Amino acid sequence: MKFNINSKTLEKLLARVLPAIPTRTPLPVIENFLFEIEEGKLVVTATDLEIALTSSLSIDADENLRIVIPARLFYDIVKSLGDTQIHFEVDHNSKMKLKTDKGEYFIGYSDASEYPVIPVVDKGKSIEINGKILKKAIDQTLFAVSKEAMRQAMLGLLFELTPEGIKFVATDGHRLVKYQNKTFPFATEDKYVIPERAVTVLSKLIPEGDVKIYLSSTNIVVDIDDLELNARLISEKYPDYNSVIPIENENTLKVNTGELRSAVRRMLLFSTSNYQQVKLAITADNVEVSAEDIDRGSSAKENVNCEYIGEPMDIGFNTGYLNDVLSHFEEDEIVFKLHSPIKACILEPREQKENEDLMMLLMPVRLNT
Amino acid sequence: MKFNINSKTLEKLLARVLPAIPTRTPLPVIENFLFEIEEGKLVVTATDLEIALTSSLSIDADENLRIVIPARLFYDIVKSLGDTQIHFEVDHNSKMKLKTDKGEYFIGYSDASEYPVIPVVDKGKSIEINGKILKKAIDQTLFAVSKEAMRQAMLGLLFELTPEGIKFVATDGHRLVKYQNKTFPFATEDKYVIPERAVTVLSKLIPEGDVKIYLSSTNIVVDIDDLELNARLISEKYPDYNSVIPIENENTLKVNTGELRSAVRRMLLFSTSNYQQVKLAITADNVEVSAEDIDRGSSAKENVNCEYIGEPMDIGFNTGYLNDVLSHFEEDEIVFKLHSPIKACILEPREQKENEDLMMLLMPVRLNT
Repeated sequence: MKFNINSKTLEKLLARVLPAIPTRTPLPVIENFLFEIEEGKLVVTATDLEIALTSSLSIDADENLRIVIPARLFYDIVKSLGDTQIHFEVDHNSKMKLKTDKGEYFIGYSDASEYPVIPVVDKGKSIEINGKILKKAIDQTLFAVSKEAMRQAMLGLLFELTPEGIKFVATDGHRLVKYQNKTFPFATEDKYVIPERAVTVLSKLIPEGDVKIYLSSTNIVVDIDDLELNARLISEKYPDYNSVIPIENENTLKVNTGELRSAVRRMLLFSTSNYQQVKLAITADNVEVSAEDIDRGSSAKENVNCEYIGEPMDIGFNTGYLNDVLSHFEEDEIVFKLHSPIKACILEPREQKENEDLMMLLMPVRLNT
Repeated sequence: MKFNINSKTLEKLLARVLPAIPTRTPLPVIENFLFEIEEGKLVVTATDLEIALTSSLSIDADENLRIVIPARLFYDIVKSLGDTQIHFEVDHNSKMKLKTDKGEYFIGYSDASEYPVIPVVDKGKSIEINGKILKKAIDQTLFAVSKEAMRQAMLGLLFELTPEGIKFVATDGHRLVKYQNKTFPFATEDKYVIPERAVTVLSKLIPEGDVKIYLSSTNIVVDIDDLELNARLISEKYPDYNSVIPIENENTLKVNTGELRSAVRRMLLFSTSNYQQVKLAITADNVEVSAEDIDRGSSAKENVNCEYIGEPMDIGFNTGYLNDVLSHFEEDEIVFKLHSPIKACILEPREQKENEDLMMLLMPVRLNT
């Protein structure tokens, strides 16, 4: 069978599904693209078994086809051809021929019988979210998803549909982030836990316009223009995060986000040893930020202006975690809500943006000194 | 003692000598900068024992100082301070104090007694080379320096001073590059072998203007503005490369560099298995460029226009080496001088640039088929 595709068009399509190809896998068949032609439509699929990406393109072809073809090789070759018309020929000899005005290229393909089945999701239940809001929700929460499997569910991002809007929650036990957008209220309450990898891939694909999301009890499918992302949900129940959020943190510390962040970033250089900690010595109008690297004999101390209501307090944090949290506020001013040096601390924007509610929680560490 | 330095000025100075700090070393002391103040001049030195970089700066200081200080930590801290005045205080407590308008930072330092001695080079014999010419000579030859220690001398770049100008030669036994610039004739003949690492570091530092080079029997010193590069020369004699350059390669193939290069680059994708080879089937007006990856069942064939004088010939090359060589010609058209499929092939620009003589030699490989 024969068909023609412009190399740039095909390159673009392949580049969009390529992120689902695993870099290492014990299952060689998923190092391939599933390459299907059905009723004049080319459909290319990639999967690492956790997520699948599918994209399609109308082409002029008489027959149907279902093969697998080495993903990176095929992509690299198509990309190397520049901008030209590719004349494809697929006969029954396990070689796909690509002919251009420059030359002829043959790529070995295989039968698709061993390619895993991508679960079909019932598209009954769907929601639509503005791409910008989805992107922001992910950008502000994803960093706090746990990297280690303490509990399966914490390896994912909690996605809640509630009458108060959508909520995204991530935690690794040391910090917790909750982002709520009230623009989209839902009649019922539903919770889904999306694996970190699916969210990471998704965040790079989100367009500015609306994104259609389909949800089943096992999978999430996101439709983005001609691309479909299908990811398996984490089935384990997400921990009851509300129970760890303190209600009575009566001491409030108002501080400029950028000033505190740049001080904490410098403290990273002074806290590279085992106890990676930074100390905040808080008084009515000043936070003394300090760190000490005993092994290397280095230390640092800076002062940042603040407005603090409460008893003077010395509190320690993991420097990296505090830096992470501070780096994920867009707002110029934030408020720390504190109770004591050993209880969870809450960070919020001084003024929440319209329709939003952002909260970060950070566990302190016991100070060495 | 006390002195002040602007953080940006110091950052720039440290950044210039930092490339000589080794990433891994069994000798911890050379992970430090040698930090010296002498007669109102700050001199900072870094070395990996193979090369040393030294830069200096006039400062206002009453006393002299000679200490070592952790290189990367010190550089990172100075860089993190942004643009500000740093007030240094060095007392005899092994801590250097840096004070800015933001805060105070302490960095542990040590006595410099264990820091290696940088060889002093007799600055009697010096030459001056235009920076642009030196940069070009290095860019066109460095890639061919051997990466493995077959012979010690081949791990370096040969730098020849002759009555016909300066010559740079590199070879790894599979390919050889010789670049000659006739602008600088020398009365005597001298040969120096500069280690690959010294040339790599040097190539990133060369300014547009003239560069002063001092040569002794053991070291090369290059003066670049306020920076001095001092490198140990390789003492082993460089192999007699002239004996491997064939004189009678009577068949000439003229071809467009870019066209052949882009064909060969695509062939890289089709020659990833053990025999990484590309075949050139040369006739009077056409080169058929082809490659085959038997393991993966892929193959490719392209045609490139040419002007060939000689008997039709099939010749094979290592695809990566041919690509390297083609990538280092700036000229639009090149000439292959061939004798047979088993003898060294010479590549030259169709027209040499004024005062230049560039020659690349490539050993063919025996074709599989």
